[in-house]
Amino acid sequence: MKELTSIHNQRVKNWKKLQTRKYRRQTGQYMLDGWHLVQEAIQSGLTIHELIGTKAALAEHSDIVSRVNAVYQVTPEIMRHITETITPQGIVAIVDMPNLKRKPALPLKGAWLLLDRVQDPGNVGTMVRTADAAGFAGVVAGDRTADFYSPKVVRSMQGSQFHLQLFEGDLNKWIADFKQQQSPVYGTQLNPAAKNFRDVHPGTDFALIMGNEGQGMSDELLKQTTDNLYIPMRGQAESLNVAVSAGILMFQLNAQN
Amino acid sequence: MKELTSIHNQRVKNWKKLQTRKYRRQTGQYMLDGWHLVQEAIQSGLTIHELIGTKAALAEHSDIVSRVNAVYQVTPEIMRHITETITPQGIVAIVDMPNLKRKPALPLKGAWLLLDRVQDPGNVGTMVRTADAAGFAGVVAGDRTADFYSPKVVRSMQGSQFHLQLFEGDLNKWIADFKQQQSPVYGTQLNPAAKNFRDVHPGTDFALIMGNEGQGMSDELLKQTTDNLYIPMRGQAESLNVAVSAGILMFQLNAQN
Repeated sequence: MKELTSIHNQRVKNWKKLQTRKYRRQTGQYMLDGWHLVQEAIQSGLTIHELIGTKAALAEHSDIVSRVNAVYQVTPEIMRHITETITPQGIVAIVDMPNLKRKPALPLKGAWLLLDRVQDPGNVGTMVRTADAAGFAGVVAGDRTADFYSPKVVRSMQGSQFHLQLFEGDLNKWIADFKQQQSPVYGTQLNPAAKNFRDVHPGTDFALIMGNEGQGMSDELLKQTTDNLYIPMRGQAESLNVAVSAGILMFQLNAQN
Repeated sequence: MKELTSIHNQRVKNWKKLQTRKYRRQTGQYMLDGWHLVQEAIQSGLTIHELIGTKAALAEHSDIVSRVNAVYQVTPEIMRHITETITPQGIVAIVDMPNLKRKPALPLKGAWLLLDRVQDPGNVGTMVRTADAAGFAGVVAGDRTADFYSPKVVRSMQGSQFHLQLFEGDLNKWIADFKQQQSPVYGTQLNPAAKNFRDVHPGTDFALIMGNEGQGMSDELLKQTTDNLYIPMRGQAESLNVAVSAGILMFQLNAQN
């Protein structure tokens, strides 16, 4: 175990840089914050490249510490610095991201959630977590969607990245793949003229697309779907939070629930 | 129109104090941030006690400004100071809170959401917004639930406080009222032995209780319900975000959707 006490140490600087998308892409790694996520990562067979903890936190879990080669004991100040949180959990691990640009095997099986420019990290993370609970096979981030491995998304996913597949790609191509294999692609629209989501029969292989918080889905994608769905609203609310809408739709549409 | 330039002005100090629950309770007032909410407040017949804006923001909406007696032009610095946000929208209004402790007329009609120690302001606000969209009559905050009129909850409610009724109270008493009038009270539980939410027939007059983010509903309340519901989860997710769960349940249970 090595002990680090200065935030000017080069290793500390590199850990902090994992807060940026650019450095995560460059290294192919990201940071997990907290024992719960570290344990989930180990259970899912991931290699812990570096385990970083305060003295108190490392002492609590000697079982895990003994299984990792590179363990660093740091000060609470360094921990706050690299996690950019005021009250970090005292333990972080550096692990590999999957290759988000890889190509999945065709035909695409199961239910898939496609995200069109969803910008809030909390919304993206919550939707991944909900997709996991709703038995979805994977989530695909289109252009300008919050990065799956940013610290805020990772926090909201609560480990669901270990349970389903995450991809990044051109949603036009993903839609074309689903349609070619005759799997329905459902868009979503804040428009009472669209199809009531309750009129869709639950299925097993399909895609559901959620759009940007303010603007919804792009017109370009809306034109390519099999059906565009609407959640009828009572009262005078103008819209639902996108993660709440996604939850209602995912639990309704997936026959495997 | 008065112009204020110092954050040490007593009026500015009072506005800032509205960030605290204590001062809101003392004055019976809270702050709306942004034109959208100010317009909703006016439409719902609320009196704007004070309208505070930057020069640029006030110039944009002279129609509204002309209808308010007390208008204050402030610096961007004062605006950031009183809203405690980095990029405020440039306009805030001071309006009355309803009396949250008032007693609703019995029998209780419609669907009601009861919150048992829900702590995250974003979750509380999102649930009020969703309850509005799902046609609920009102939302009741039990002890230790985030304050409906805190700035973060107000931001997440997006104006839904003008569309449904908000109360604070002892949930034990609310449950007793529903049961006395033979309306079902549904608790929620992260326990597969509880009743599958899909097995409940949608109804018109009922209560749904959501619990704390980490601990769920209190055992004391779980014992008093008509039924405790569970959302069956696939995959390996351990739970759903409480606002997502609430959305799925509210849209399922309310026959008025």
